[in-house]
Amino acid sequence: MARVLYELLGDEDRRFSPYCWRIRLALAHKGLEAEFEPCRFTEMDKVAFSGGKTVPVLVDGESVVRDSWAIACHLEDAYADRPSLFGGARGRALARFVNLWTDGVFHPALFPLVVADVHDAAHPDDRAYFRQSREARLGRALVDPGAAPETHAANLSRALAPLRALIGEQPFVAGADPAYADYTVFGAFQWARCTSPHPLLAPDDPLVPWRTRLLDLYDGLARTVPAFA
Amino acid sequence: MARVLYELLGDEDRRFSPYCWRIRLALAHKGLEAEFEPCRFTEMDKVAFSGGKTVPVLVDGESVVRDSWAIACHLEDAYADRPSLFGGARGRALARFVNLWTDGVFHPALFPLVVADVHDAAHPDDRAYFRQSREARLGRALVDPGAAPETHAANLSRALAPLRALIGEQPFVAGADPAYADYTVFGAFQWARCTSPHPLLAPDDPLVPWRTRLLDLYDGLARTVPAFA
Repeated sequence: MARVLYELLGDEDRRFSPYCWRIRLALAHKGLEAEFEPCRFTEMDKVAFSGGKTVPVLVDGESVVRDSWAIACHLEDAYADRPSLFGGARGRALARFVNLWTDGVFHPALFPLVVADVHDAAHPDDRAYFRQSREARLGRALVDPGAAPETHAANLSRALAPLRALIGEQPFVAGADPAYADYTVFGAFQWARCTSPHPLLAPDDPLVPWRTRLLDLYDGLARTVPAFA
Repeated sequence: MARVLYELLGDEDRRFSPYCWRIRLALAHKGLEAEFEPCRFTEMDKVAFSGGKTVPVLVDGESVVRDSWAIACHLEDAYADRPSLFGGARGRALARFVNLWTDGVFHPALFPLVVADVHDAAHPDDRAYFRQSREARLGRALVDPGAAPETHAANLSRALAPLRALIGEQPFVAGADPAYADYTVFGAFQWARCTSPHPLLAPDDPLVPWRTRLLDLYDGLARTVPAFA
Protein backbone atom coordinates (compact mmCIF):
# COMPACT_ATOMS: atom_id res chain seq x y z
CA MET A 1 0.00 0.00 0.00
CA ALA A 2 1.40 3.35 -0.98
CA ARG A 3 1.97 5.71 1.93
CA VAL A 4 3.22 9.21 1.14
CA LEU A 5 3.94 12.06 3.54
CA TYR A 6 4.03 15.48 1.94
CA GLU A 7 6.42 17.59 3.96
CA LEU A 8 8.06 20.98 3.88
CA LEU A 9 11.35 21.34 2.02
CA GLY A 10 13.83 24.15 2.54
CA ASP A 11 17.17 25.00 1.05
CA GLU A 12 19.83 22.30 0.80
CA ASP A 13 17.34 19.56 1.66
CA ARG A 14 16.46 21.10 5.02
CA ARG A 15 13.27 19.54 6.49
CA PHE A 16 12.38 21.92 9.27
CA SER A 17 8.60 21.90 9.67
CA PRO A 18 7.76 21.20 13.34
CA TYR A 19 4.40 19.75 12.26
CA CYS A 20 6.01 17.34 9.80
CA TRP A 21 8.45 16.13 12.45
CA ARG A 22 5.56 15.16 14.68
CA ILE A 23 4.41 12.81 11.94
CA ARG A 24 7.86 11.51 10.99
CA LEU A 25 8.27 10.40 14.59
CA ALA A 26 4.69 9.12 14.84
CA LEU A 27 5.28 6.93 11.78
CA ALA A 28 8.48 5.57 13.32
CA HIS A 29 6.65 4.97 16.62
CA LYS A 30 4.10 2.87 14.72
CA GLY A 31 6.83 1.13 12.72
CA LEU A 32 5.38 2.40 9.44
CA GLU A 33 7.30 3.26 6.31
CA ALA A 34 6.43 6.19 4.07
CA GLU A 35 7.78 7.99 1.06
CA PHE A 36 8.49 11.65 1.61
CA GLU A 37 7.23 14.04 -1.00
CA PRO A 38 8.83 17.45 -0.54
CA CYS A 39 6.87 20.69 -0.94
CA ARG A 40 8.36 24.14 -0.79
CA PHE A 41 6.39 27.03 0.77
CA THR A 42 5.39 28.27 -2.70
CA GLU A 43 4.50 24.80 -4.00
CA MET A 44 1.50 24.09 -1.79
CA ASP A 45 -0.71 23.67 -4.82
CA LYS A 46 0.78 20.16 -4.78
CA VAL A 47 -1.38 19.36 -1.74
CA ALA A 48 -4.53 21.19 -2.82
CA PHE A 49 -6.10 17.74 -3.35
CA SER A 50 -6.13 17.43 0.44
CA GLY A 51 -8.50 20.35 0.84
CA GLY A 52 -5.86 22.71 2.21
CA LYS A 53 -2.54 24.30 1.39
CA THR A 54 -0.40 23.25 4.30
CA VAL A 55 1.74 20.23 5.09
CA PRO A 56 1.92 17.65 6.50
CA VAL A 57 -0.52 15.72 4.34
CA LEU A 58 -0.57 11.94 4.57
CA VAL A 59 -1.82 9.78 1.75
CA ASP A 60 -2.33 6.34 3.24
CA GLY A 61 -3.86 3.99 0.72
CA GLU A 62 -7.35 5.36 0.12
CA SER A 63 -7.11 7.89 2.95
CA VAL A 64 -6.02 11.50 2.49
CA VAL A 65 -5.45 13.24 5.81
CA ARG A 66 -4.23 16.77 6.39
CA ASP A 67 -3.21 18.54 9.65
CA SER A 68 -0.73 16.91 12.01
CA TRP A 69 -3.25 16.17 14.78
CA ALA A 70 -5.70 14.57 12.34
CA ILE A 71 -2.86 12.49 10.90
CA ALA A 72 -1.78 11.32 14.35
CA CYS A 73 -5.37 10.30 15.15
CA HIS A 74 -5.63 8.50 11.81
CA LEU A 75 -2.43 6.55 12.49
CA GLU A 76 -3.59 5.66 16.00
CA ASP A 77 -6.97 4.40 14.82
CA ALA A 78 -5.92 2.76 11.54
CA TYR A 79 -2.99 0.93 13.19
CA ALA A 80 -4.50 0.22 16.59
CA ASP A 81 -2.58 -3.05 16.89
CA ARG A 82 0.77 -1.22 16.82
CA PRO A 83 2.37 0.73 19.68
CA SER A 84 -0.04 3.40 20.86
CA LEU A 85 0.67 7.09 20.31
CA PHE A 86 -1.71 8.16 23.07
CA GLY A 87 -2.33 5.32 25.52
CA GLY A 88 -6.11 5.42 25.43
CA ALA A 89 -8.88 7.99 25.25
CA ARG A 90 -7.71 10.10 28.19
CA GLY A 91 -4.12 10.05 27.01
CA ARG A 92 -5.35 11.27 23.62
CA ALA A 93 -7.41 14.07 25.17
CA LEU A 94 -4.49 15.27 27.27
CA ALA A 95 -1.99 14.92 24.40
CA ARG A 96 -4.27 17.37 22.63
CA PHE A 97 -3.70 19.84 25.48
CA VAL A 98 0.07 19.45 25.05
CA ASN A 99 -0.45 19.96 21.31
CA LEU A 100 -2.47 23.16 21.80
CA TRP A 101 0.00 24.43 24.39
CA THR A 102 2.84 23.81 21.94
CA ASP A 103 1.02 25.59 19.13
CA GLY A 104 -0.26 28.47 21.23
CA VAL A 105 2.51 29.05 23.78
CA PHE A 106 5.76 27.33 22.83
CA HIS A 107 5.77 28.16 19.10
CA PRO A 108 4.96 31.86 19.56
CA ALA A 109 7.69 32.16 22.20
CA LEU A 110 10.19 30.39 19.94
CA PHE A 111 9.23 32.11 16.70
CA PRO A 112 10.99 35.47 17.24
CA LEU A 113 14.23 33.68 18.10
CA VAL A 114 14.39 31.65 14.89
CA VAL A 115 12.27 33.42 12.29
CA ALA A 116 15.18 35.20 10.60
CA ASP A 117 17.10 31.91 10.48
CA VAL A 118 14.06 30.09 9.10
CA HIS A 119 13.99 32.68 6.34
CA ASP A 120 17.60 31.89 5.51
CA ALA A 121 16.95 28.13 5.66
CA ALA A 122 14.02 28.39 3.26
CA HIS A 123 14.56 27.66 -0.41
CA PRO A 124 15.82 30.78 -2.23
CA ASP A 125 12.65 30.87 -4.34
CA ASP A 126 10.54 30.86 -1.15
CA ARG A 127 12.26 33.62 0.80
CA ALA A 128 10.32 36.58 -0.56
CA TYR A 129 7.04 34.79 0.18
CA PHE A 130 8.24 33.80 3.63
CA ARG A 131 9.35 37.31 4.54
CA GLN A 132 6.17 38.92 3.28
CA SER A 133 3.77 36.46 4.95
CA ARG A 134 5.63 36.34 8.28
CA GLU A 135 6.15 40.09 8.48
CA ALA A 136 2.42 40.49 7.91
CA ARG A 137 1.74 38.00 10.71
CA LEU A 138 4.24 39.61 13.09
CA GLY A 139 3.34 43.18 12.15
CA ARG A 140 7.05 44.03 12.00
CA ALA A 141 10.33 43.15 10.32
CA LEU A 142 11.60 39.57 10.75
CA VAL A 143 14.40 40.82 12.97
CA ASP A 144 12.57 42.53 15.79
CA PRO A 145 14.00 46.03 16.16
CA GLY A 146 12.21 46.53 19.47
CA ALA A 147 13.45 43.65 21.60
CA ALA A 148 16.85 42.25 22.42
CA PRO A 149 17.40 38.53 21.78
CA GLU A 150 17.83 38.19 25.56
CA THR A 151 14.23 39.30 26.01
CA HIS A 152 12.96 36.66 23.62
CA ALA A 153 15.17 34.03 25.24
CA ALA A 154 13.81 34.92 28.68
CA ASN A 155 10.25 34.71 27.33
CA LEU A 156 10.95 31.28 25.90
CA SER A 157 12.53 30.03 29.10
CA ARG A 158 9.50 31.20 31.07
CA ALA A 159 7.09 29.61 28.58
CA LEU A 160 8.87 26.28 28.97
CA ALA A 161 8.60 26.25 32.77
CA PRO A 162 5.77 23.66 33.04
CA LEU A 163 7.56 21.37 30.59
CA ARG A 164 10.80 21.76 32.52
CA ALA A 165 9.06 20.91 35.78
CA LEU A 166 7.52 17.82 34.19
CA ILE A 167 10.80 16.54 32.79
CA GLY A 168 12.34 17.05 36.21
CA GLU A 169 10.02 14.28 37.39
CA GLN A 170 9.77 11.79 34.52
CA PRO A 171 11.96 10.91 31.50
CA PHE A 172 9.36 11.73 28.84
CA VAL A 173 6.39 14.05 28.49
CA ALA A 174 4.22 10.96 28.11
CA GLY A 175 5.80 9.25 31.13
CA ALA A 176 8.26 6.36 31.20
CA ASP A 177 8.30 6.03 27.39
CA PRO A 178 7.99 8.55 24.56
CA ALA A 179 4.71 9.07 22.77
CA TYR A 180 2.92 11.63 20.63
CA ALA A 181 3.01 14.37 23.28
CA ASP A 182 6.81 14.16 23.19
CA TYR A 183 6.87 14.36 19.39
CA THR A 184 4.63 17.43 19.48
CA VAL A 185 7.01 19.31 21.74
CA PHE A 186 10.16 17.96 20.13
CA GLY A 187 8.99 19.12 16.69
CA ALA A 188 9.54 22.69 17.84
CA PHE A 189 13.09 21.95 18.98
CA GLN A 190 13.78 20.22 15.70
CA TRP A 191 12.39 23.23 13.81
CA ALA A 192 14.97 25.36 15.59
CA ARG A 193 17.74 22.80 15.23
CA CYS A 194 17.26 22.50 11.46
CA THR A 195 17.35 26.23 10.88
CA SER A 196 19.19 28.12 13.57
CA PRO A 197 22.53 28.08 15.39
CA HIS A 198 20.81 29.82 18.32
CA PRO A 199 21.12 27.66 21.48
CA LEU A 200 17.59 27.54 22.84
CA LEU A 201 18.45 25.89 26.13
CA ALA A 202 21.15 26.64 28.67
CA PRO A 203 23.59 23.71 28.97
CA ASP A 204 22.28 22.87 32.44
CA ASP A 205 18.59 23.04 31.47
CA PRO A 206 16.84 19.80 32.54
CA LEU A 207 15.26 19.75 29.09
CA VAL A 208 18.64 19.12 27.41
CA PRO A 209 18.85 15.41 28.30
CA TRP A 210 15.20 14.95 27.29
CA ARG A 211 15.94 16.55 23.91
CA THR A 212 18.92 14.21 23.53
CA ARG A 213 16.69 11.22 24.28
CA LEU A 214 14.34 12.36 21.50
CA LEU A 215 17.23 12.83 19.08
CA ASP A 216 18.38 9.29 19.89
CA LEU A 217 15.00 7.66 19.19
CA TYR A 218 14.53 5.29 16.25
CA ASP A 219 18.22 4.98 15.48
CA GLY A 220 18.73 8.72 15.65
CA LEU A 221 16.02 9.51 13.09
CA ALA A 222 16.00 13.24 13.90
CA ARG A 223 19.76 13.40 13.38
CA THR A 224 19.53 12.13 9.79
CA VAL A 225 18.72 15.54 8.28
CA PRO A 226 20.84 18.66 7.76
CA ALA A 227 20.86 20.63 11.02
CA PHE A 228 23.00 22.58 13.40
CA ALA A 229 24.74 20.73 16.23
CA MET B 1 -11.85 2.24 57.81
CA ALA B 2 -11.37 5.82 58.87
CA ARG B 3 -10.64 8.22 56.04
CA VAL B 4 -9.97 11.85 56.94
CA LEU B 5 -9.13 14.75 54.64
CA TYR B 6 -7.52 17.71 56.35
CA GLU B 7 -8.51 20.78 54.39
CA LEU B 8 -8.22 24.55 54.60
CA LEU B 9 -10.90 26.45 56.48
CA GLY B 10 -11.63 30.15 56.05
CA ASP B 11 -14.11 32.52 57.63
CA GLU B 12 -17.77 31.51 57.80
CA ASP B 13 -16.98 27.91 56.84
CA ARG B 14 -15.40 28.91 53.51
CA ARG B 15 -13.42 26.00 51.97
CA PHE B 16 -11.43 27.69 49.26
CA SER B 17 -8.16 25.79 48.83
CA PRO B 18 -7.76 24.87 45.15
CA TYR B 19 -5.60 21.90 46.15
CA CYS B 20 -8.21 20.55 48.55
CA TRP B 21 -10.92 20.80 45.87
CA ARG B 22 -8.86 18.58 43.60
CA ILE B 23 -9.08 15.90 46.28
CA ARG B 24 -12.72 16.47 47.21
CA LEU B 25 -13.61 15.82 43.57
CA ALA B 26 -11.15 12.93 43.26
CA LEU B 27 -12.78 11.24 46.26
CA ALA B 28 -16.23 11.72 44.69
CA HIS B 29 -14.91 10.36 41.38
CA LYS B 30 -13.79 7.22 43.19
CA GLY B 31 -17.03 7.04 45.16
CA LEU B 32 -15.17 7.30 48.45
CA GLU B 33 -16.42 8.93 51.63
CA ALA B 34 -14.24 10.96 53.94
CA GLU B 35 -14.51 13.08 57.02
CA PHE B 36 -13.28 16.63 56.59
CA GLU B 37 -11.02 17.99 59.26
CA PRO B 38 -10.70 21.75 58.90
CA CYS B 39 -7.39 23.56 59.39
CA ARG B 40 -6.95 27.29 59.36
CA PHE B 41 -3.78 28.84 57.89
CA THR B 42 -2.33 29.30 61.38
CA GLU B 43 -3.29 25.83 62.59
CA MET B 44 -1.03 23.79 60.32
CA ASP B 45 0.62 22.20 63.34
CA LYS B 46 -2.42 19.92 63.19
CA VAL B 47 -0.93 18.23 60.11
CA ALA B 48 2.72 18.21 61.24
CA PHE B 49 2.33 14.41 61.65
CA SER B 50 2.24 14.25 57.82
CA GLY B 51 5.77 15.60 57.51
CA GLY B 52 4.67 18.99 56.23
CA LYS B 53 2.60 22.02 57.13
CA THR B 54 0.23 22.28 54.19
CA VAL B 55 -3.11 20.77 53.33
CA PRO B 56 -4.56 18.66 51.84
CA VAL B 57 -3.43 15.71 53.92
CA LEU B 58 -5.28 12.43 53.58
CA VAL B 59 -5.31 9.83 56.31
CA ASP B 60 -6.59 6.65 54.72
CA GLY B 61 -6.47 3.78 57.16
CA GLU B 62 -2.77 3.19 57.76
CA SER B 63 -1.68 5.59 55.02
CA VAL B 64 -0.80 9.23 55.61
CA VAL B 65 -0.39 11.13 52.34
CA ARG B 66 0.34 14.82 51.87
CA ASP B 67 0.36 16.95 48.68
CA SER B 68 -2.58 16.87 46.29
CA TRP B 69 -0.75 15.04 43.48
CA ALA B 70 0.55 12.35 45.83
CA ILE B 71 -2.95 11.94 47.25
CA ALA B 72 -4.46 11.57 43.76
CA CYS B 73 -1.86 8.91 42.91
CA HIS B 74 -2.56 7.13 46.19
CA LEU B 75 -6.30 7.05 45.48
CA GLU B 76 -5.73 5.82 41.94
CA ASP B 77 -3.44 3.00 43.06
CA ALA B 78 -5.20 2.01 46.28
CA TYR B 79 -8.63 1.94 44.60
CA ALA B 80 -7.66 0.67 41.17
CA ASP B 81 -10.97 -1.17 40.79
CA ARG B 82 -12.94 2.09 40.96
CA PRO B 83 -13.32 4.66 38.15
CA SER B 84 -9.89 5.79 37.04
CA LEU B 85 -8.65 9.32 37.71
CA PHE B 86 -6.03 9.12 34.97
CA GLY B 87 -6.90 6.43 32.43
CA GLY B 88 -3.58 4.61 32.49
CA ALA B 89 0.11 5.44 32.71
CA ARG B 90 0.17 7.94 29.84
CA GLY B 91 -2.96 9.66 31.06
CA ARG B 92 -1.31 10.01 34.47
CA ALA B 93 1.90 11.43 32.99
CA LEU B 94 -0.02 14.00 30.95
CA ALA B 95 -2.37 14.87 33.82
CA ARG B 96 0.81 15.80 35.65
CA PHE B 97 1.59 18.30 32.88
CA VAL B 98 -1.87 19.83 33.33
CA ASN B 99 -1.21 19.92 37.07
CA LEU B 100 2.15 21.67 36.67
CA TRP B 101 0.68 24.09 34.12
CA THR B 102 -2.11 24.90 36.58
CA ASP B 103 0.33 25.45 39.44
CA GLY B 104 2.90 27.36 37.41
CA VAL B 105 0.82 29.34 34.91
CA PHE B 106 -2.87 29.45 35.82
CA HIS B 107 -2.49 30.05 39.57
CA PRO B 108 0.08 32.87 39.22
CA ALA B 109 -2.13 34.57 36.60
CA LEU B 110 -5.19 34.24 38.82
CA PHE B 111 -3.53 35.14 42.11
CA PRO B 112 -3.36 38.94 41.68
CA LEU B 113 -7.06 39.05 40.81
CA VAL B 114 -8.23 37.29 43.96
CA VAL B 115 -5.54 37.67 46.59
CA ALA B 116 -7.19 40.62 48.35
CA ASP B 117 -10.49 38.74 48.39
CA VAL B 118 -8.79 35.59 49.68
CA HIS B 119 -7.45 37.71 52.53
CA ASP B 120 -10.97 38.81 53.37
CA ALA B 121 -12.29 35.25 53.09
CA ALA B 122 -9.66 33.94 55.49
CA HIS B 123 -10.51 33.46 59.13
CA PRO B 124 -10.05 36.75 61.05
CA ASP B 125 -7.30 35.17 63.15
CA ASP B 126 -5.44 34.19 59.95
CA ARG B 127 -5.54 37.48 58.08
CA ALA B 128 -2.39 39.04 59.51
CA TYR B 129 -0.43 35.87 58.72
CA PHE B 130 -1.93 35.70 55.24
CA ARG B 131 -1.14 39.33 54.46
CA GLN B 132 2.42 39.09 55.72
CA SER B 133 3.27 35.81 53.96
CA ARG B 134 1.65 36.74 50.65
CA GLU B 135 3.07 40.24 50.58
CA ALA B 136 6.49 38.69 51.12
CA ARG B 137 5.85 36.28 48.25
CA LEU B 138 4.54 39.01 45.94
CA GLY B 139 7.09 41.61 46.97
CA ARG B 140 4.31 44.19 47.17
CA ALA B 141 1.02 45.04 48.84
CA LEU B 142 -1.86 42.60 48.32
CA VAL B 143 -3.66 45.14 46.17
CA ASP B 144 -1.20 45.79 43.36
CA PRO B 145 -0.68 49.54 43.12
CA GLY B 146 1.15 49.19 39.81
CA ALA B 147 -1.34 47.37 37.61
CA ALA B 148 -4.98 47.88 36.76
CA PRO B 149 -7.33 44.92 37.29
CA GLU B 150 -7.85 44.98 33.52
CA THR B 151 -4.17 44.13 33.06
CA HIS B 152 -4.40 41.14 35.37
CA ALA B 153 -7.63 40.04 33.68
CA ALA B 154 -5.99 40.21 30.27
CA ASN B 155 -3.00 38.22 31.58
CA LEU B 156 -5.35 35.56 32.92
CA SER B 157 -7.32 35.36 29.69
CA ARG B 158 -4.10 34.92 27.72
CA ALA B 159 -2.82 32.26 30.14
CA LEU B 160 -6.03 30.29 29.68
CA ALA B 161 -5.78 30.24 25.86
CA PRO B 162 -4.63 26.58 25.52
CA LEU B 163 -7.35 25.43 27.90
CA ARG B 164 -9.95 27.45 26.01
CA ALA B 165 -8.84 25.94 22.71
CA LEU B 166 -9.07 22.44 24.20
CA ILE B 167 -12.57 22.94 25.58
CA GLY B 168 -13.61 24.25 22.19
CA GLU B 169 -12.97 20.73 20.91
CA GLN B 170 -14.03 18.38 23.71
CA PRO B 171 -16.39 18.62 26.70
CA PHE B 172 -13.76 17.95 29.38
CA VAL B 173 -10.03 18.45 29.77
CA ALA B 174 -9.70 14.68 30.05
CA GLY B 175 -11.91 14.10 26.98
CA ALA B 176 -15.49 12.83 26.86
CA ASP B 177 -15.72 12.46 30.64
CA PRO B 178 -14.22 14.38 33.55
CA ALA B 179 -11.12 13.13 35.34
CA TYR B 180 -8.32 14.38 37.52
CA ALA B 181 -7.00 16.88 34.96
CA ASP B 182 -10.38 18.60 35.09
CA TYR B 183 -10.37 18.70 38.87
CA THR B 184 -6.89 20.23 38.87
CA VAL B 185 -7.98 23.11 36.68
CA PHE B 186 -11.40 23.48 38.28
CA GLY B 187 -9.84 23.80 41.74
CA ALA B 188 -8.51 27.20 40.70
CA PHE B 189 -11.93 28.37 39.55
CA GLN B 190 -13.43 27.12 42.80
CA TRP B 191 -10.74 28.96 44.77
CA ALA B 192 -11.88 32.16 43.07
CA ARG B 193 -15.57 31.33 43.37
CA CYS B 194 -15.34 30.71 47.13
CA THR B 195 -13.53 33.97 47.82
CA SER B 196 -14.15 36.61 45.20
CA PRO B 197 -17.06 38.29 43.40
CA HIS B 198 -14.68 39.02 40.50
CA PRO B 199 -15.99 37.40 37.30
CA LEU B 200 -12.99 35.57 35.91
CA LEU B 201 -14.55 34.68 32.57
CA ALA B 202 -16.50 36.75 30.07
CA PRO B 203 -20.07 35.44 29.72
CA ASP B 204 -19.34 34.16 26.21
CA ASP B 205 -16.06 32.44 27.15
CA PRO B 206 -16.15 28.79 25.97
CA LEU B 207 -14.85 27.85 29.42
CA VAL B 208 -18.08 28.96 31.09
CA PRO B 209 -20.14 25.87 30.09
CA TRP B 210 -17.21 23.61 31.06
CA ARG B 211 -17.09 25.26 34.50
CA THR B 212 -20.83 24.74 34.82
CA ARG B 213 -20.39 21.05 33.97
CA LEU B 214 -17.82 20.77 36.74
CA LEU B 215 -20.08 22.56 39.21
CA ASP B 216 -22.87 20.10 38.32
CA LEU B 217 -20.77 16.97 38.94
CA TYR B 218 -21.56 14.61 41.80
CA ASP B 219 -24.94 16.17 42.61
CA GLY B 220 -23.49 19.66 42.54
CA LEU B 221 -20.77 18.92 45.09
CA ALA B 222 -18.86 22.14 44.39
CA ARG B 223 -22.05 24.16 44.94
CA THR B 224 -22.51 22.85 48.49
CA VAL B 225 -20.13 25.32 50.10
CA PRO B 226 -20.41 29.08 50.73
CA ALA B 227 -19.39 30.89 47.54
CA PHE B 228 -20.23 33.71 45.22
CA ALA B 229 -22.64 33.06 42.33
